[in-house]
Amino acid sequence: MEITTSEQGRGVGVMALTTRANRMLGIEHPIVQAPMDGIAGGALAAAVTDAGGLGMIGGGYGDPDWLAREFTAAGTTRVGCGFITWSVADRPHLLDQALAHEPAAVMLSFTDPTPLATRVHDAGARLMCQVNTRRQAEQALHAGADIIVAQGTEAGGHGYGPQTTLSLVPEVVDTTTTHAPEAVVLAAGGIADGRGLAAALALGADGVLVGTRFYASTEALSTPPARDRVVAADGADTCRTTIYDTVRTPWPHGHTMNVLRNDFVDRWHGAEDELRATRTEATAEYRQAVTERDYDIANVTAGQAAGLIHEIHPAAHTVHHMVTHAEEILRSRAATVTRNPAIGKNPTE
Amino acid sequence: MEITTSEQGRGVGVMALTTRANRMLGIEHPIVQAPMDGIAGGALAAAVTDAGGLGMIGGGYGDPDWLAREFTAAGTTRVGCGFITWSVADRPHLLDQALAHEPAAVMLSFTDPTPLATRVHDAGARLMCQVNTRRQAEQALHAGADIIVAQGTEAGGHGYGPQTTLSLVPEVVDTTTTHAPEAVVLAAGGIADGRGLAAALALGADGVLVGTRFYASTEALSTPPARDRVVAADGADTCRTTIYDTVRTPWPHGHTMNVLRNDFVDRWHGAEDELRATRTEATAEYRQAVTERDYDIANVTAGQAAGLIHEIHPAAHTVHHMVTHAEEILRSRAATVTRNPAIGKNPTE
Ligand SMILES: Cc1cc2nc3c(=O)[nH]c(=O)nc-3n(C[C@H](O)[C@H](O)[C@H](O)COP(=O)(O)O)c2cc1C
Ligand SMILES: Cc1cc2nc3c(=O)[nH]c(=O)nc-3n(C[C@H](O)[C@H](O)[C@H](O)COP(=O)(O)O)c2cc1C
Repeated sequence: MEITTSEQGRGVGVMALTTRANRMLGIEHPIVQAPMDGIAGGALAAAVTDAGGLGMIGGGYGDPDWLAREFTAAGTTRVGCGFITWSVADRPHLLDQALAHEPAAVMLSFTDPTPLATRVHDAGARLMCQVNTRRQAEQALHAGADIIVAQGTEAGGHGYGPQTTLSLVPEVVDTTTTHAPEAVVLAAGGIADGRGLAAALALGADGVLVGTRFYASTEALSTPPARDRVVAADGADTCRTTIYDTVRTPWPHGHTMNVLRNDFVDRWHGAEDELRATRTEATAEYRQAVTERDYDIANVTAGQAAGLIHEIHPAAHTVHHMVTHAEEILRSRAATVTRNPAIGKNPTE
Repeated sequence: MEITTSEQGRGVGVMALTTRANRMLGIEHPIVQAPMDGIAGGALAAAVTDAGGLGMIGGGYGDPDWLAREFTAAGTTRVGCGFITWSVADRPHLLDQALAHEPAAVMLSFTDPTPLATRVHDAGARLMCQVNTRRQAEQALHAGADIIVAQGTEAGGHGYGPQTTLSLVPEVVDTTTTHAPEAVVLAAGGIADGRGLAAALALGADGVLVGTRFYASTEALSTPPARDRVVAADGADTCRTTIYDTVRTPWPHGHTMNVLRNDFVDRWHGAEDELRATRTEATAEYRQAVTERDYDIANVTAGQAAGLIHEIHPAAHTVHHMVTHAEEILRSRAATVTRNPAIGKNPTE
């Protein structure tokens, strides 16, 4: 990794951290914005790329009209796109629709990416696979992933299993070094500031993928009252649950979704059987709450990083702050290398 | 933080990282070994202190004979001691027994430390409080804690709530800076190597508290077959559950225990009501399994760091390796500060 100081270029006065992720993705800062379903539209993705990171359109479950509109909103800015693998697996034309826009990268998350991998590579895009375990990382590398996103359980949105970013990232880095040393690893989950970026690099990641922090940005398609809940929340106010999937789209076994606790979560989490029994009514109640922006019932999809978010910012502010602060943290460690006379002499003097 | 190079002293050829934690605890390396109930005896604690960290005897629920024996085993080496707060709250003589040995620090974990805080300070020991949320950190600081241990959900053993080390540590650092800037923060949970230590320092912690890695050390009171399970496990093979507390000592609401998955976990986790209904038989089965070292049924108490542990080591090896590697990671960031001509000129040249 190189730390570079940039006084020119797009990020005026902003430091730059150059890693293998920058080179593979052709970006200035090793910060990728997560392709959040329905939240990460073209405006957010373009803002992140313009700030020197990589923005990703949140293709999610796959909706051709939404996808067309948001690629248009991104304009000529180079962005990526993400999909929920099991949802688009039998509708590969949605993937083709995205590939026609020549995205820098396509991210496939949740369940085996193998059936779609060749399509992505044939179109000249980088294949990014989000994983929750070491074994899933090995599967994705076998499928030819260029980039592994190691997502910890503190992440906003869906995930699988208990592993946290701090323990998963070094496991995935080790297995990547063994199986495909040229592949790049990004850390995802709980990263909202320069400390998280610096920590991810210390763990051996080449960069980060950030969701919740960008959910609370001015360009996101999140609603203002939902963003305010993110600002107000502590990390402990989140809950991984299946209840929203029960009133929306059921997910493959073992997956849960990280949301902020609210009345709906307090009522149904732990009472999943009862919720399924009253599913029709609960679904109607949920849909109405979404329309009315009633976040006591509707979901605010966010991770534990909410506890580190105290203001809504434009995406460029976040990118510049994260990289400048991470650079300061890493550099300050170096500036304070000293000899401690109580311990011993520095042999190089 | 200072990075010092030590060629003399206890850690021959070993680097040293000097933080506020070193100064407060009078240690060479900012590594504290967790006071693991029944596992961290005097031999382990003394080995960690002798290697330049701080060893802690695992007083746990409180057993006067065990405590006396293990303080004897530590000999004249300076160690600390830890207790489960709610378990010793109505038996403060156990705390007094430990304080009579003039421990460097006493760690109180799980539930409000306030009732016991004065006793610890009056005896001249440092008060260390383990917390799982920002709010608990504020309570502990209010009680006069010198050291806050921010424990993430990936940790081995008991804990409370969903927060992970990566998201909890910066939240706790921020609240400590506001409420008691002289207090020191240690990160706990998922830290098993130099990457974890370097990441903890990047997150703003002053050092780390390490359990699972030392569980798998030659001096721990863990059994060889249990250690072998830790070596074999991935981080994803852990499970936070209440089932072992059901057949041992019930815990206050909201607490769970992180263990390796085995047949007993697969059978009872998620079937807690049934387990309670057959508690007498299950307890007998559990006790026999402990005696027989049958870890398909008995608990192997370990966290997600198990996925990073591939060998049993003496504790000193772990301390030296962690600090040397963390120092290398932090220093290498500095050594590679370069200008990137594609981005801009370094204004200091
Ligand atoms: C609102 C929201 C929606 C998300 N939707 C998706 C999605 O559609 N596909 C996906 O792969 N990940 C999705 N994620 C997860 C992100 O890709 C990423 O792993 C996560 O945001 C990283 O953790 P963080 O939220 O702590 O930054 C979503 C996350 C959020 C917060
Ligand atoms: C076997 C074992 C026993 C533990 N017993 C206690 C205990 O009695 N009191 C306590 O405060 N913490 C206890 N812990 C938790 C540790 O203090 C610490 O938070 C944890 O080990 C840190 O995470 P790590 O295991 O990933 O290093 C225990 C942990 C383990 C692995």
